[in-house]
Amino acid sequence: MTRSIRTHVLSDEAVAKLKTVSTATITSQLNKRGLRNTFLAGIYPLRPDLRMVGYAFTLRYIPAREDLADELYDNTRNVQRLAVEAIGPDDVLVIDARGEIAWGATLGNILGTRIKVRGAAGIVTDGALRDTPAFKEIDLPTYIRAPHATSSFVIHHPVEMQTPIGCAGVAVIPGDILVGDGEGVVAIPARMAEEVAHAAYEQERREEFIQQKIAGGASILGVYPPNEETLAEYEAWLQTNEQ
Amino acid sequence: MTRSIRTHVLSDEAVAKLKTVSTATITSQLNKRGLRNTFLAGIYPLRPDLRMVGYAFTLRYIPAREDLADELYDNTRNVQRLAVEAIGPDDVLVIDARGEIAWGATLGNILGTRIKVRGAAGIVTDGALRDTPAFKEIDLPTYIRAPHATSSFVIHHPVEMQTPIGCAGVAVIPGDILVGDGEGVVAIPARMAEEVAHAAYEQERREEFIQQKIAGGASILGVYPPNEETLAEYEAWLQTNEQ
Amino acid sequence: MTRSIRTHVLSDEAVAKLKTVSTATITSQLNKRGLRNTFLAGIYPLRPDLRMVGYAFTLRYIPAREDLADELYDNTRNVQRLAVEAIGPDDVLVIDARGEIAWGATLGNILGTRIKVRGAAGIVTDGALRDTPAFKEIDLPTYIRAPHATSSFVIHHPVEMQTPIGCAGVAVIPGDILVGDGEGVVAIPARMAEEVAHAAYEQERREEFIQQKIAGGASILGVYPPNEETLAEYEAWLQTNEQ
Amino acid sequence: MTRSIRTHVLSDEAVAKLKTVSTATITSQLNKRGLRNTFLAGIYPLRPDLRMVGYAFTLRYIPAREDLADELYDNTRNVQRLAVEAIGPDDVLVIDARGEIAWGATLGNILGTRIKVRGAAGIVTDGALRDTPAFKEIDLPTYIRAPHATSSFVIHHPVEMQTPIGCAGVAVIPGDILVGDGEGVVAIPARMAEEVAHAAYEQERREEFIQQKIAGGASILGVYPPNEETLAEYEAWLQTNEQ
Amino acid sequence: MTRSIRTHVLSDEAVAKLKTVSTATITSQLNKRGLRNTFLAGIYPLRPDLRMVGYAFTLRYIPAREDLADELYDNTRNVQRLAVEAIGPDDVLVIDARGEIAWGATLGNILGTRIKVRGAAGIVTDGALRDTPAFKEIDLPTYIRAPHATSSFVIHHPVEMQTPIGCAGVAVIPGDILVGDGEGVVAIPARMAEEVAHAAYEQERREEFIQQKIAGGASILGVYPPNEETLAEYEAWLQTNEQ
Amino acid sequence: MTRSIRTHVLSDEAVAKLKTVSTATITSQLNKRGLRNTFLAGIYPLRPDLRMVGYAFTLRYIPAREDLADELYDNTRNVQRLAVEAIGPDDVLVIDARGEIAWGATLGNILGTRIKVRGAAGIVTDGALRDTPAFKEIDLPTYIRAPHATSSFVIHHPVEMQTPIGCAGVAVIPGDILVGDGEGVVAIPARMAEEVAHAAYEQERREEFIQQKIAGGASILGVYPPNEETLAEYEAWLQTNEQ
Repeated sequence: MTRSIRTHVLSDEAVAKLKTVSTATITSQLNKRGLRNTFLAGIYPLRPDLRMVGYAFTLRYIPAREDLADELYDNTRNVQRLAVEAIGPDDVLVIDARGEIAWGATLGNILGTRIKVRGAAGIVTDGALRDTPAFKEIDLPTYIRAPHATSSFVIHHPVEMQTPIGCAGVAVIPGDILVGDGEGVVAIPARMAEEVAHAAYEQERREEFIQQKIAGGASILGVYPPNEETLAEYEAWLQTNEQ
Repeated sequence: MTRSIRTHVLSDEAVAKLKTVSTATITSQLNKRGLRNTFLAGIYPLRPDLRMVGYAFTLRYIPAREDLADELYDNTRNVQRLAVEAIGPDDVLVIDARGEIAWGATLGNILGTRIKVRGAAGIVTDGALRDTPAFKEIDLPTYIRAPHATSSFVIHHPVEMQTPIGCAGVAVIPGDILVGDGEGVVAIPARMAEEVAHAAYEQERREEFIQQKIAGGASILGVYPPNEETLAEYEAWLQTNEQ
Repeated sequence: MTRSIRTHVLSDEAVAKLKTVSTATITSQLNKRGLRNTFLAGIYPLRPDLRMVGYAFTLRYIPAREDLADELYDNTRNVQRLAVEAIGPDDVLVIDARGEIAWGATLGNILGTRIKVRGAAGIVTDGALRDTPAFKEIDLPTYIRAPHATSSFVIHHPVEMQTPIGCAGVAVIPGDILVGDGEGVVAIPARMAEEVAHAAYEQERREEFIQQKIAGGASILGVYPPNEETLAEYEAWLQTNEQ
Repeated sequence: MTRSIRTHVLSDEAVAKLKTVSTATITSQLNKRGLRNTFLAGIYPLRPDLRMVGYAFTLRYIPAREDLADELYDNTRNVQRLAVEAIGPDDVLVIDARGEIAWGATLGNILGTRIKVRGAAGIVTDGALRDTPAFKEIDLPTYIRAPHATSSFVIHHPVEMQTPIGCAGVAVIPGDILVGDGEGVVAIPARMAEEVAHAAYEQERREEFIQQKIAGGASILGVYPPNEETLAEYEAWLQTNEQ
Repeated sequence: MTRSIRTHVLSDEAVAKLKTVSTATITSQLNKRGLRNTFLAGIYPLRPDLRMVGYAFTLRYIPAREDLADELYDNTRNVQRLAVEAIGPDDVLVIDARGEIAWGATLGNILGTRIKVRGAAGIVTDGALRDTPAFKEIDLPTYIRAPHATSSFVIHHPVEMQTPIGCAGVAVIPGDILVGDGEGVVAIPARMAEEVAHAAYEQERREEFIQQKIAGGASILGVYPPNEETLAEYEAWLQTNEQ
Repeated sequence: MTRSIRTHVLSDEAVAKLKTVSTATITSQLNKRGLRNTFLAGIYPLRPDLRMVGYAFTLRYIPAREDLADELYDNTRNVQRLAVEAIGPDDVLVIDARGEIAWGATLGNILGTRIKVRGAAGIVTDGALRDTPAFKEIDLPTYIRAPHATSSFVIHHPVEMQTPIGCAGVAVIPGDILVGDGEGVVAIPARMAEEVAHAAYEQERREEFIQQKIAGGASILGVYPPNEETLAEYEAWLQTNEQ
């Protein structure tokens, strides 16, 4: 498969909600559904001011081998280049770079610009990007483990796109929903994402109420987690604050 | 012990001085007193603009085990929650998380808010915090190894508070004085802290003088470390600049 | 050797060009010349706003041993101090600290100030610096693996200056040209640096053109890497934009 | 608590069975009961020829601090020494050394001999032991992360015995059953251990049958995991091979 | 692809030679052909007494996700089980486990037995195996990073077989020739393997001669690497020792 | 300096004693003299059956750089080869390989044979050796961090011999005494070694007595460390067992 994958399409409302809730809240919802390992550990945003929501478009690298290098200079055979020209609007390019950050990057800012122009929603890798100062100027959410100035072909060889991968210790299946905030990135299984979006939004409303009580001096006892009294209070608050 | 511990109470003057001196200067004073390992390595401030001075209130986690999880939902048995409701003004919550940052956090921003409201002076962990974007909005010094969106109970089980712990490679005894700046956190043994505060302050005055000479073009020879002539010059400068 | 080393002196034009091109572009030029390992991995700038170009002045540390500590208090025998007083204008102090960041720093801000006053172009280490908040106030490019408040003598013993070293996984020979930007630091072998400076500058002009085309909606096919048509277009653009 | 802890005492039959089943089989039984993290990762046996079964007797170390060192020379105050004289028959000393193997050991062979004489069933640490060549001569199962010749007091300070700890990434509660074979060590929660012992023994009988079929040329289909036909065959085999 | 892959079939003579030459010699031959990264770093043989030569049969794991676990219990859908029943004589199963050794294994001894019965030449993984004591009893070369008693499904999810993978930092393409000795494993690109086999054999004959000279007291000057005189001597020796 | 260095020559008796005492005992003697970091962490013997005592002959590698490779093929310029032909009887070759074990070795068995023939006492590196199966056949103590089949020139470039280095985290000065046993290697500063040899021997006699008491059932109280009574008993035992 070499195109965008949408095993489940999110409603506009779900997308809007996922753009406001934190990745922390989303992991709580996924925990409730039995998933414990959904946050991509050890990567950080180059643009913490931007929010990211999109569909996983995966790309997998293996260690470079010198006799395979020829095809990397041919845009019609280099899988990385094919992926860049296949990615579509609202896709997030997720690159499995085996956590490699010592010898080279996975991509630079010219390809990053092309990805942006094609309408993608972001780039995520457990390896490095190069040209990171320039990447900070592109309005595209990007998440990396480290910067590295050296070209990807020194250490990586792209082999596949749109197959299941591991990235930063987490399974990512093409079409999964990736959400990013200033903390990092969470991968939501495609079939759960609509439901999680709404539930996370509800959870954050309740936690906003709880947070206000705590900030106002309440003990956590009976409040966090909320007992029945607090929940009733919340319901009342909700009606008052509802638009 | 489940309350604030003050084996030695600092004078107001010492607290004020510790808020101005650098952690680097404090480690030098501790080195002079024979302590070589007092700086918590590999953690960084979420709020480098804030200074932290407070008494260590320790909390210890072990790896989570599924059959122990029940008590985590009960605020009267979960040691983490008991600690949050036991911490007092000027305490620094120090969490021994075994350096774990791959699978989950140690605490989130609702508990962080409660800790702030209770008057605590800061939070320090060699693990992760979650809701770090929200934490940056709380006026509370926080020091972490990494952000992680996932709840603590996935990987951690709190077992004890106010016992001696290791945190980021350093021994922390309840009641020790923890000082934080933009560089990180240093742990001062309680019984030395008053003396160290004054000595560090004096050292910084002298180094301010030295720094001015160096910035003005002096060689380090005879100046850093200072010989007798430079020390005499410093004494004169001190009298001129004394208020 | 205990003075600045200039096996090859850069022209003013080359220096000026190296101050504008990215470390990413320089690694590409070095790759073309057969060098794959020239970017110092895992270190970051304390001052990402400053550009660095200078000649490598190397300093090598070994693990501290208590019976060797005496000479560290003597500026006429401590190799670190001798290096600080030997470094000259446009030199970059590069410290091989074996990647150690857990137990202490390599240098603090008073020595950093002296290095700045002597006209040096920057400081690079694969270990830590102390007084990093103060370092951020000195207008000197500095690249480190981590901050650490503790004095260097706790863990390091300086043994040599101006010999070949490894730093952050890369060979650095005295007199090599070190270039730093917001991404990090690249080491250019002295004899290649003049040529690389000009070639990198040319490459960036061409990539500026390519980047504009990509940003304007062009596919990478035929454009990146450029085919003959694109190259011809570039030549035309170059004449139009030439001053 | 400073004595052996037996929250649940194993029957002789359970002990005998635990001495024959593999740690792999035990983790399978614990997985079935919802526990996924019970094998102490990254440690190995100094004596792979010995089997270990015993009750966890825990000991916890924090990083050494020079001003606390005095008590280490006093057998009536040093918690490590108190633990050695408190450990009883069939106990396994489990030392939380925070995974530290770079700077010193946790114990040497004279204390190891005393532990053996007191009837203990083994020693387990996620740190180092010293005198490992001598340890190989003691008939006591020992599991370590690495050897290190240096005395524990250089890097460790013992603070507590018989409290819950983490060791090699796994929760260990005093009284838990620790089982070791040539592969490593598994920690069984005390209240499950009797049941797990019997179930593991049954599992291994079935797997012995399956293994024989596979070794004889059977496909895994229908055999591993076994379908009803295979299970019926197994029951027949069991009766034939029963004593 | 779910069967053995033979892009290039080795002659019997080449197989025989590869069984005698060291992995060190093979990497030298690959270096001469421009390949620098062919030895799988950080893995070791469970059976250092056995030699391994075979064709790469690859299997790729990603991090486990709880909602995907169902298929793991179905031998007709679990890719790991399909691979075990697809592997053929002289294949080497090479498992990309992302270097994971902290949470679980990749395979146990029942599947290992089946692999052996099917005629496979070995098993290689950059993760763990379980039942390693039992594996040592199977006459099958196995190479691992560490033992771990826990079942693979706790941390791994198999997704593909017979696609290019990275294993222990090295590219492995299905059909590549894997050679193992007491030092470890080298991956030879399929199309080079026949030639490398013969060249490695020749190199070892020459080095046997050199080794004898060195052992007999010769300096390395002129001998290693050999000058013309030594080469002539070698040619003479060769004729004398030829059968 | 390119020859064996003997800043202090050991007496025959000291050499003989150092061949019997453990590295653990030696570190204790060095601790008493204020040295805490003398054991080379994380390396292991290829030949645990052999004891090693010799004088440090150091060799330092930096990361390889392609444009420096030419000199590696010239035995008159390659510092590694010069070192092999300069090392003398009772020297121990100690190679600073920066802990690198992922990309290549530091030396192979032909050079190892030459080192043996020249009378050297051993080889120690914090990197890898290649041809480790063959090394096990040479009667030469060798200590490594890992095996790696690939030639050193892929990742290392030798630059200096007989200068102070760090190896496995420990300072090694040319002429230091290196002692190795089945546990690993300790570096003794040259000027202390004679004294340490005798003191370690005495310590082991006393500990032999203590060990016998402990093995016979004595508590550690009053025995380890010994009180006056035990010391008197020891003196008596000593006279009885003296020859």
